[in-house]
This record gives sequence, C-alpha cells and structure tokens, in this order.
Amino acid sequence: MAVGQTVLPVLLPVEGVCLGATSAGIKSPGRKDLVVISLDKGATCAGVFTQNKFCAAPVIIARQNMSETTPRLFVINTGNANAGTGKQGLSDARAVCSALAALHECQANEVLPFSTGVIGEIYPLETVKSGLPGTYQALNKNGWVDAANGILTTDTFAKGASKKISIDGHAVTVTGIAKGSGMIRPDMATMLAFIATDVAISKKLLDQCLQTSVAASFNRITVDGDTSTNDACILMATAKSNLPLIKEENEVYRKVCDAIAEVCEQLAQAIVRDGEGATKLITIDVFEGTSEQECKEVAYTIAHSPLVKTAFFAKDPNWGRILAAVGRADVENLDISAMSIFLNDVCIVSNGGRAPGYTEKSGQDVMDLDEITIRVNLGRGLYSARIWTCDLSYDYVRINAEYRS
Amino acid sequence: MAVGQTVLPVLLPVEGVCLGATSAGIKSPGRKDLVVISLDKGATCAGVFTQNKFCAAPVIIARQNMSETTPRLFVINTGNANAGTGKQGLSDARAVCSALAALHECQANEVLPFSTGVIGEIYPLETVKSGLPGTYQALNKNGWVDAANGILTTDTFAKGASKKISIDGHAVTVTGIAKGSGMIRPDMATMLAFIATDVAISKKLLDQCLQTSVAASFNRITVDGDTSTNDACILMATAKSNLPLIKEENEVYRKVCDAIAEVCEQLAQAIVRDGEGATKLITIDVFEGTSEQECKEVAYTIAHSPLVKTAFFAKDPNWGRILAAVGRADVENLDISAMSIFLNDVCIVSNGGRAPGYTEKSGQDVMDLDEITIRVNLGRGLYSARIWTCDLSYDYVRINAEYRS
Repeated sequence: MAVGQTVLPVLLPVEGVCLGATSAGIKSPGRKDLVVISLDKGATCAGVFTQNKFCAAPVIIARQNMSETTPRLFVINTGNANAGTGKQGLSDARAVCSALAALHECQANEVLPFSTGVIGEIYPLETVKSGLPGTYQALNKNGWVDAANGILTTDTFAKGASKKISIDGHAVTVTGIAKGSGMIRPDMATMLAFIATDVAISKKLLDQCLQTSVAASFNRITVDGDTSTNDACILMATAKSNLPLIKEENEVYRKVCDAIAEVCEQLAQAIVRDGEGATKLITIDVFEGTSEQECKEVAYTIAHSPLVKTAFFAKDPNWGRILAAVGRADVENLDISAMSIFLNDVCIVSNGGRAPGYTEKSGQDVMDLDEITIRVNLGRGLYSARIWTCDLSYDYVRINAEYRS
Repeated sequence: MAVGQTVLPVLLPVEGVCLGATSAGIKSPGRKDLVVISLDKGATCAGVFTQNKFCAAPVIIARQNMSETTPRLFVINTGNANAGTGKQGLSDARAVCSALAALHECQANEVLPFSTGVIGEIYPLETVKSGLPGTYQALNKNGWVDAANGILTTDTFAKGASKKISIDGHAVTVTGIAKGSGMIRPDMATMLAFIATDVAISKKLLDQCLQTSVAASFNRITVDGDTSTNDACILMATAKSNLPLIKEENEVYRKVCDAIAEVCEQLAQAIVRDGEGATKLITIDVFEGTSEQECKEVAYTIAHSPLVKTAFFAKDPNWGRILAAVGRADVENLDISAMSIFLNDVCIVSNGGRAPGYTEKSGQDVMDLDEITIRVNLGRGLYSARIWTCDLSYDYVRINAEYRS
C-alpha cells in the first residue's frame, strides 16, 4: 500500500551529474541493486548522516572521506546494510571505494560508499565489486529514474522530485531521489537521499542549506520511530549553471535554498506515503507551544502511539487515543483546559474534554480520508512544529515479520 | 494469545476485605462489568495513579477523596473510561460515590471510583447506579476471583496473585488482582490493581511500600508504550493479622514489603503475558550503566521498537534490529566497542559488531522459545534495570483496529 501520489515525476538532469544502475545480484536476481553517481570536478558537496551510535561501516567511511576531500563518486548497494559488521565491514567499505576509484582514475577517498538492507550480515564484497564495471559503464546524465529505482528496498515506488526555477534570468535545476519505507525516524539525517543542483555555491552555504532543508523535511518524518544505522543525505552543487557563485546569504541563496527545501519536503513526504503498510498520510501540526522542542515532543508522542496509528488504520474516530497520547507527552505543566485538538477542521477536544458540538459523524467523515491533519493547540506560547507520519496496519507487521524470509 | 502461565492461582481471602462483581449491562449483556470492594474500619490504604495529564474523572476524584480520608469502598466499572469527559465526567464520578455511600451508610468521599474502557464517551451513570445495589449485596470475602474477572476489558485471562508468609509465628496474607492488556506503559502507577494484606501498618510505611513495589513491577512493563488515562494501583492493609503494628523500617517491614513486591511483580508480568496479541514474554536486562536512568532508556528503546517487536513475533533472529534500537537510545557517548548484547546466553554483539562464534542456529534456538531475555551490557558503570515487554503481532493491530466495533 501507499498513500496518494506515488508516480515518479519527470526528473530533470542536472549538468555535471551522471548516474548508472544495474543488477549485481546481491539479493534478488535481476533486480537493480547497485548504483553509481558521478560528480564533475569543480562541484561542492554537503552531507548529513545518521546519529545512530551503531552507524554502519559505509557511514563511517563516507563521513571520513567527505572531511578529507570533495567526493567525485557515490556508490550505493541495497540488500546488505554493512552495519554491525565490525572491522571487516570497514575494510569491505574501503575496498569498494578503491575498486571504483581505480575505474575512474581518482583517489579512493574521493568515493563515498552507501549501503542499505539487512543489518548484521557479512558484506558481499566480491559480488558488489564484480558489478562495479558495468554500473560505471552505465553512467549517464539521464540516469535519475534508474538510480531512483536502484536504491529501493521495501519501498513500493521510486521517489524523486525535481524543480526548475529562474533567478536573474539564469535557469537553476534541483533534482533529488530518496529511498525509505521502514526503520524511519531520521535523526539529523534521513534514509538515503541524493540531491543535486547546478548552482555554484560555497561549501559553507551548501552545508547550511542542507541542514536547514533536512531539519524541515527528513527530520520531521516518522514511520515507526526506529532510526536506521545507515541514514545519509547528500546535496551536490555542480557549478554548471551560469548563475554567479553564491557566497553570501542573499536573496539568490534564499531562492535556491527554498527550491532545495521544497524538493527535500517532497522526498520526505514520499517516504511517509510509502511507509511500510501505510494507508494514511498523517500531518501533525502542534502550535502555540512555549518552544519548538515541546511542540515536537507532543507531535512525536502522537505519531509513535501504536493505538493512535491502529485507530487511523481502522478509520475509527477513537479520538480519546490522541488525547491520551498528548497527555503522556513529556512536557511539564501542560494545562489541558487551555488546549484544543482538531482532526482537520473538526474540533475534538476543548476545555479538557470532548468538544461541544463534536459528533461521531464529523469525526468519521475525516477518518475516511486518505490524508489527514491532526492539529494540537497547546494554548500557551508562540512556537510550532509540523511532522508527518502514517498509520500502523497488518501489512506493517507482515512486511517486518517476513523481512528476511 | 497469551504467553505462559495464564491460570488464576488460588486467591486467599484477606480478613477485612470483601468483594462483589455483577453485570450491570454497561457494554456486553451478561458480562461482569461492575465490581465493589469494601474495606473494614481500622485499615490503612495507599494509592498511586496515572501521570497522564488527561487523567480520567475517577482518577481525579479518587486522588482527592484519598487525600481527605481512609477509603471504605472501591467501585470499578469497565466498558467506559469516563476520561476526556470534562465537568460532566467529574459530576458523574461523584454521583457514583454518593450512590454507593448511601447503601453503606458512609460518606461519599469514603468511596473511590475507578473506570476502564473507551475514552471520550459519555459515562453511563444510570446504568452503573442501577447495578450498584446488586453488586453491593454480592460482597463477600471469597469474592477475589469474581472481582478479578469483573475488572477485565481486552484481557484474555483474569490476573491475580496470592502469598502467605509467617512472621514471628503470625500468618500474613497478601492477595492482589489486576487488569491490563493494551495502552500499557504505566508511569508511576499501573492499569487497575487492587492489593490487600492483613497486617497493621502506618500510612507512611504503606505508601512507601507501594511506591517501592510499583517502581519495580508495574512501572517496569510496557506493551505498546501508551500510558493510560485511568491507571491506578491501590494497596490496602486491614490490620486484622495478629502481627503488631508496623511503624518503622525494620525486618518485619522488609518481609511484608517483599511479599507485596512479589505479588506486584507477578501481577505486572501477567499483564505483559496478556499483552494485546502477545506471543512472547520478553525480559530486558540492561546492566553496567552509569545510572539506572540510562539503563531504563536503553531498555525501553528496545521494548518500544516496532521492528524488534515484529522480529520476535516472527521468531526471526534479526538481531541487527536490537543493535539499531540500542544505537538510537538517547544516551550520551555510548561506546559501542565496550558493549555486548545477548539473547538469553547467546552473545550476538560484541566489539561493535556481530559476536565471533554467533550462528544463525544459536539465535534461532532462542527465538523459538516463548520467554526470552535480552541482556545488554553497557560496559561502563555499576547500575542496572530490568523491564518486561511483549512482541507486536497481527493480533495487536486487529484488536486495536476493531476495539470499538
């Protein structure tokens, strides 16, 4: 299942970026499972990675290589996370970088490795290495759709977003792809996402733009509250557009950053739409809090409540479960008499209890929709936070009970 | 489903306590849904209640009445939580107390009300009131089994525990009952539990004994991480035993408190064994932490991971999910190379990766069991914590998707 828009939009090429995807036979024969992305010289690049302390070997190597030089190549495999694999995993991730660097005649630390799949199984190094030459051969600037498909695991559809804007008469393109469906509560990062733009921009501003965009997109989604060991989000700027180098936080920077943020938000929402077993896209808006942190705490407590999630799956306006989740959020001195809670525009709770005028039918009419917003007014401050999540269905259990079989 | 021991043991009467249960027809006709417990004069009583800010009307009234006087009667209904019901709910809870007080010829604030069931629906006051005389008539000292059955909701078996010990030649009895199956992560309280002993003990020490016992039992269990609006745990001491009044923290106090703690632990475990849809009882032991708090944080992060829970349901030794959950726990500077993780006695993780010698078969042999212990050695301190949880199955989703239908 998946909710709403699941068709891959047109993905515009970004000058300076090529992508190739093939099947190396890592897990299912014939399924594309190996992707290479190349970046022309002269580009800048930013990345954010999972905060999970058991982060995967490729995350450690990618983070280290990125601190040393500007990447020229990215290599992504599915079917094996190379996580929980200790020293052997680090050695394997380095070996993949070396093998690809040899084909491109660059340094090994100019290659960043990424893996996604089962945690704790030994990395299929020889299989991946044998697939590299063919994947490298497949590199082309129209390879976005192949790459979007090649990075998927339990996803049911390929995820991409693309945007073309004009700044001072110069065309600027932003295109991105992402994968993710379960083990989704990115923490200062996301599942895998690769986003490119053709502007020229300083490394410092590119980093800042990525942080801002991720904070409002990938870091605001949750499927099941589980943070992956392998999350990573990469933002490339190829400097191929005619727009002059962006080196300060001016209007041009803001326009480019807005476009990047929009692509990130579309990709993040696509991950929730494709949440394992999802039948609903649920937006949670918490506002009038005394801090953004407390708004997020309330929002995530609702989003992670299995009882709220199963009620949405059942289309059951059992709003008492939302109330119970708000009431257990770790927020001090919450005054329930000042709060109100809405399902879309239907007020379900006010003055500490069921809102006057609420009817089962008005709640049911909202619950029958595929995309629903829960709004919580804390009634005590000026801050707000928005996150996205999905419901909990039989299929979530099935998918994750059968994951390795 | 339920895991392991589900047969109600013999529940010994406690002199000074009578119980009655009948069907008032609140939800399902013929099902026992109304319980009254009476406590003879001269007893002391302690209680802990949910910390959910949207706590139910009966919780507010029970807490208030308890602060004013020693309770004489407890009235418990299922089928309606009287939560999220605002001022009307408070008025209804008070009306039930008054009606029962009139039958017993006591003050209304000597009655404590308890409710459990759907949140947010209007309280069926007249139905409950009409059931009170018959339930009051049914009061008898052998009513523990009836009461254990009368307080159930989605539970699949009645929960009780009983213990008789001898102190200085005097017999002391402790008997308790509890209900709970979903919306279970008690926070300074539990779902409903009523425990009685026949010792004479000061109010201060009884409070302390309850706090200690609850902290190590009901506050160490989680089914789904959701804290109910209606949790309450009551401990009564009837002063009918010949043992002299306990008024200091001596050896006699410790023996009595140990017996009470043991009954609480059995009741708490019974709730997890009967967790909605549960097929596994999972004990999580985290040790060698720098504080009890960080051990609990790691334990609850594992216990609430839907991916860990579905792997247990599938009997799949996908131990990478346990590693990923530990890695996302909110604990500073965790050194993964110092840690080790075990399934029963099988080491699955050491030195930041898969333990040498671990085999799929050794993991599978543990996963095939109904009762499993996850042990996490943080390798950096002297503190520990133990909690209990269960798996996440299709039936959890079914039960909670169909709850109101």
